[in-house]
Amino acid sequence: MTLVVQKYGGSSVADAECVQRVARRVAAAREAGHDVVVVVSAMGDTTDELIDLAGRITSGPAGRELDMLLTAGERISMALLAMAVTELGHHATSFTGSQAGLVTDAAHGRARIVEVAPARIRTALAAGSVVIVAGFQGMAQDTQDVTTLGRGGSDTTAVALAAALGADLCEIYTDVDGVFTADPRIVPTARLMPAVSHEEMLELAAHGAKVLHSRCVEFARRYGVPLRVRSSFADDVGDDPLTGRGGTRITSTTEGRTDHAMEDPLISGIAHDRSQAKITVVGIPDKPGAAAAVFTALAGAGCDVDMIVQNVSAEATGCTDISFTLPASAAKSALDALKGVEESSGFLGLRHDDRVGKLSVVGAGMRAHPGVSATLFSALAETGVNIQMISTSEIRISVVVHVDDLEAAVGAAHTAFGLDSEQIEAVVYGGTGR
Amino acid sequence: MTLVVQKYGGSSVADAECVQRVARRVAAAREAGHDVVVVVSAMGDTTDELIDLAGRITSGPAGRELDMLLTAGERISMALLAMAVTELGHHATSFTGSQAGLVTDAAHGRARIVEVAPARIRTALAAGSVVIVAGFQGMAQDTQDVTTLGRGGSDTTAVALAAALGADLCEIYTDVDGVFTADPRIVPTARLMPAVSHEEMLELAAHGAKVLHSRCVEFARRYGVPLRVRSSFADDVGDDPLTGRGGTRITSTTEGRTDHAMEDPLISGIAHDRSQAKITVVGIPDKPGAAAAVFTALAGAGCDVDMIVQNVSAEATGCTDISFTLPASAAKSALDALKGVEESSGFLGLRHDDRVGKLSVVGAGMRAHPGVSATLFSALAETGVNIQMISTSEIRISVVVHVDDLEAAVGAAHTAFGLDSEQIEAVVYGGTGR
Repeated sequence: MTLVVQKYGGSSVADAECVQRVARRVAAAREAGHDVVVVVSAMGDTTDELIDLAGRITSGPAGRELDMLLTAGERISMALLAMAVTELGHHATSFTGSQAGLVTDAAHGRARIVEVAPARIRTALAAGSVVIVAGFQGMAQDTQDVTTLGRGGSDTTAVALAAALGADLCEIYTDVDGVFTADPRIVPTARLMPAVSHEEMLELAAHGAKVLHSRCVEFARRYGVPLRVRSSFADDVGDDPLTGRGGTRITSTTEGRTDHAMEDPLISGIAHDRSQAKITVVGIPDKPGAAAAVFTALAGAGCDVDMIVQNVSAEATGCTDISFTLPASAAKSALDALKGVEESSGFLGLRHDDRVGKLSVVGAGMRAHPGVSATLFSALAETGVNIQMISTSEIRISVVVHVDDLEAAVGAAHTAFGLDSEQIEAVVYGGTGR
Repeated sequence: MTLVVQKYGGSSVADAECVQRVARRVAAAREAGHDVVVVVSAMGDTTDELIDLAGRITSGPAGRELDMLLTAGERISMALLAMAVTELGHHATSFTGSQAGLVTDAAHGRARIVEVAPARIRTALAAGSVVIVAGFQGMAQDTQDVTTLGRGGSDTTAVALAAALGADLCEIYTDVDGVFTADPRIVPTARLMPAVSHEEMLELAAHGAKVLHSRCVEFARRYGVPLRVRSSFADDVGDDPLTGRGGTRITSTTEGRTDHAMEDPLISGIAHDRSQAKITVVGIPDKPGAAAAVFTALAGAGCDVDMIVQNVSAEATGCTDISFTLPASAAKSALDALKGVEESSGFLGLRHDDRVGKLSVVGAGMRAHPGVSATLFSALAETGVNIQMISTSEIRISVVVHVDDLEAAVGAAHTAFGLDSEQIEAVVYGGTGR
């Protein structure tokens, strides 16, 4: 027996009709002969409404109580989905995170999964039941309190269950068709990627592609869980999860690309991110320990720094500038933390710029092709886009530009790397039948 | 340390402001020096809305899934109340029915409490926390599935916890001031009873008084839990639960009536019930086994029969008529069940009347006063009300009348037993300070 884990997000179960649509998809997978475990988010805006309610009562809810409140949303959607699947003639059983064996640490609001002990799920599957599990939640190992997993929590629940149960596939259903070579809203010629590696997807997700959260991809990579991202609104309901070709497959190698392996592109896709800010520490002494003081202060304030660039020191003053990017929402606490070490670390001032955007070019093919940066920089130069910062990994190049230049930069890079659909549409779509 | 259990119904926590009002009451009880356990229902119409949602998906939801769905409501209200109490400077911890140790049987939708094992509550109380518990829910002993307790479930949760924890008092907060001598909407001279015995309250609740469910009163009587019914909307927030005098106290004796013991009334109150129907089995052979066949059929259909009257048999035919009352909602299945035994039990026909009302006069003083029926029947006769059926218990007389006569009958009985407030207001209100 093959086992498929499917995850449906809040927009996929926004109302009773949506729940019924999802149930038809679940029933089809069951009828195709698979065991099916479904992970479901809270309906539509339920979670936001619950957060609003809490906000009317207190500005600082205890994490334990906020988690208890928010997990009510998934209880509602999972019970409704179980009813809808039953209505289609299949036995269905719903489980909370705690009942499903999602054991976490006690960090309320951002709990980490410690262990998955899905005994009740295995029993229900063996009895022929479809299993519906509440996403985003677990139970703390020590306190037995209900926890939530924080951002990307439902996707991560699905991947963790798929890993623990040895699933053949974990499908992440969402409201878009899959992973594109760039955001189709700003690059109309962007095309659906039929397949991408875990590594590439991780870089795309970490640098702004919103279709999957990097935490879920990281988990999938570590445990070798094959993923597939597809739309719950598409008309491919009867499509067998294991052999169907819609959406984007994310696998440990690029094996899924057999249909166009000969033309494996250098670059898989372009991600962009408008949510960051840039802070520059001006005139900091270029000597051992100065930069450490700055970043120790930031770490102490819980700031998640992304790119860091240190200028060449000015010989006359022995001072340099250090620029870094971080989520714009963390900029205020970062600036406060830095002001606290202004005297001890001896820098002259701080500059803060939240009008920045980040563009990232990702592709496993980059490893063997040294010319990628040159192609990117030329394309941006021809478009008149000034580069403020650069950082690279083995399979990614990221640049920070003025936010007003971001869309033009993404479009130029997409064209420069041959990703536009006019150029290779025949190859890609010929294979997928979509 | 004294322990007070408080229960707040859905209308008491209908929105964020209501939750804050309840929190002030909880905080006041804590500040008066008591340990406090709070049982809370779902907010306002939440439960009805969830049932609606399920109805849009299926006409016959599995009990297990419906219970999972409905228990989400109390999770929301309990977490919000815990936040609101914390906001007032007291530590508060919320527990689901399962976490609170409410162990039930597996009868989804109408589970019975099997055991209360409140270890986590005791630990939280010992740590100085106010404890908030979700009403209406528990966990099935064998399956570990979430269950709901059905009608009166939140009141019953409160009484069960009070019994298990050895509470000094269980307060049931509602949207009326307490238990009245009759429904003030139909008897404007009805007055608040400062005290009533468990037995009397049980009769009143079982026969139409809606302020408490008979299941909760029965539980309180069995375990000797002192109850107090009061309004969450009254302005007596600072009133100490144990010594305050508002609302109605329900105790195992009438000890709470010390302030007017000398004038202990013969009759405590008048209940009425419009929700019943009367069915008459016409011309049934007056021989052993015939009546048994009828009531066996009714029991098989799950019909909860209340009053039963059998006429004197007509000598000519050897046949009699049997009339009984039952909840109007069960009349159809009762009629169907009876038609199934029409031939075997040999009756001639069925009559169904849903235009009936029941009036019940309740009072512990009745035991020593044989004249009560005479007073009631005279009062009804003077008002021109015809009595259709009569039944009695040790401390109650009930009569069935035409539904159009019901209000006049309740008013006449209230006056005849000296319950009108003009007559005894000074004695009662002089004592309670309300």
